[in-house]
Amino acid sequence: MRTIDWRDGRIVAVDQTGLPHDVRMLEIGTTAELVDAIKRLAIRGAPALGVAGALGVALAVRDEPEDRDRDIKALRAARPTAVNLAWGVDRALARLGDGPDAVLAEALEILEADVRDNRALARRGADWLLEHAAGPIDVQTHCNAGGLACVEWGTALGVLRVLRERGALGHVYVDETRPLLQGARLTTWELARLGIAHTLVVDAAGPSILARGLAGAVVVGADRVAANGDVINKVGTYPLALAAARAGAPFLVAAPESTIDPASPAGDAVEIEVRDPDELVHIGQTVVAPPGTATLNLAFDVTPADLVTAIVTERRLIRPARGERP
Amino acid sequence: MRTIDWRDGRIVAVDQTGLPHDVRMLEIGTTAELVDAIKRLAIRGAPALGVAGALGVALAVRDEPEDRDRDIKALRAARPTAVNLAWGVDRALARLGDGPDAVLAEALEILEADVRDNRALARRGADWLLEHAAGPIDVQTHCNAGGLACVEWGTALGVLRVLRERGALGHVYVDETRPLLQGARLTTWELARLGIAHTLVVDAAGPSILARGLAGAVVVGADRVAANGDVINKVGTYPLALAAARAGAPFLVAAPESTIDPASPAGDAVEIEVRDPDELVHIGQTVVAPPGTATLNLAFDVTPADLVTAIVTERRLIRPARGERP
Repeated sequence: MRTIDWRDGRIVAVDQTGLPHDVRMLEIGTTAELVDAIKRLAIRGAPALGVAGALGVALAVRDEPEDRDRDIKALRAARPTAVNLAWGVDRALARLGDGPDAVLAEALEILEADVRDNRALARRGADWLLEHAAGPIDVQTHCNAGGLACVEWGTALGVLRVLRERGALGHVYVDETRPLLQGARLTTWELARLGIAHTLVVDAAGPSILARGLAGAVVVGADRVAANGDVINKVGTYPLALAAARAGAPFLVAAPESTIDPASPAGDAVEIEVRDPDELVHIGQTVVAPPGTATLNLAFDVTPADLVTAIVTERRLIRPARGERP
Repeated sequence: MRTIDWRDGRIVAVDQTGLPHDVRMLEIGTTAELVDAIKRLAIRGAPALGVAGALGVALAVRDEPEDRDRDIKALRAARPTAVNLAWGVDRALARLGDGPDAVLAEALEILEADVRDNRALARRGADWLLEHAAGPIDVQTHCNAGGLACVEWGTALGVLRVLRERGALGHVYVDETRPLLQGARLTTWELARLGIAHTLVVDAAGPSILARGLAGAVVVGADRVAANGDVINKVGTYPLALAAARAGAPFLVAAPESTIDPASPAGDAVEIEVRDPDELVHIGQTVVAPPGTATLNLAFDVTPADLVTAIVTERRLIRPARGERP
């Protein structure tokens, strides 16, 4: 199953708000519908957002020539932190002069490349981990950087899949990833389908999993990598990096080249999305804080380059903690 | 309002499972009822558990002489990590030879002393913080170490109350504290009643609050302090200590002497309570993970002594990060 695909002139995507209980597909025929799906995280994950951005441009230039510029601008800005979304939009837009068919062809190439690139970077990540630890390797991960965040294969979970193919994967610890619980809802669901043994913990416990030696490595995805090697990823990544450094465990980021943003000199230059307080205060029908409580719902955090042992992309290995820059 | 008190031969306590929406009082007349209330966290907080342990012995020796030993053993073991519970039980039991009235008198002395001791340690904590930072001081806290965790005044929140009295408290950031949300449910409720400005964040964001300089200090309580200065507290404390150390922010633990356990040489010698998976997987009526997902619901974590800038008790200041031992 592909998380996001193009079928009969529409985007077809898994509605990630329904998982793990309901596996529903969205069919999206307009850029406005796509923007809505991205904002409410029905479509999410940095690599998948890159594909969605490109396919969204294909929709805009085909059906909506009069509102095209406005729609594409809204799409590009639907979520600010993952650079892949703007990258996908810009790549498709660059073909505009060649007509709508060329735009669509570019978007479909991005879609197919995502699958190939994920496999390539996952192999590179597994190779690198096995140079640093004897298998089976027990891993702590955060949020969802699996097939559900990409087209099919996954970045961080892609690394784990390759380790498993090689008989070198131990146990996987999954942070629940508040407030939207992508770890509890999505990563557990993927790992169960893959038959990979895993245990769910609260985000606050991830650092203890490393301190206790239950996991010997951290493997995560990224929403943006700054030019100095700082990594912007789902909030809760930074504490895992601190704990990995203290435990002497490798901290590996698996992300495609499209996640690297030379235009952001460092993490503090990246806009960190602040989301709706309701996401934090309501869990299903349960209200967990007194009415009117102020929140700061930061969606991402910045892991400084010196804590990032390695980044693997489809093309290369970068070791920011050793001073290497993307 | 006292969180826990003795009235007409019964323990009267706020049922903390109902907060922040329902303020219900429990009336507890038997040790078995008390054990149940402690296990389901209707009564919680290390200092309050010390008081509850002593009052529970008073109940046991008065009403249930035949089952006394069994009941007291169950009470002492109702929760394993906070040393205060066993401490309160043992202090009351030491008066057993003098009869039930002496046991009750000892328990009531522990109760009254909690209020006095909280105020003394809170003043010491505020004094120390103001030596290290100019007010107003913005603070990150975790879980609930307020009046609801004690009899009346609070340990970590007691420090904040003293800072506020001195006009030296800035903004307070509160971790929600998964899985049972004591920060979201209890600390926000207390701070709102006290008129202290605060913002709720997910546990995963606390380290970012420190990295961004939004808070300049961490103030937390403790469930046990080992002989080497390691601090055992609600899971999620350790990542805040890592982040505080990286940010150069003081990490202050406010706890009564009864929390210090000379019998535990270091944090790794302390039993960390593992609680029911259902606490993690269910939030109200919402099931947040696929059925059958394995969890590791660690209730506490260990903050190594070198990350603990200071501990204040009612009697003294200890600086574990400088090598001082309790």
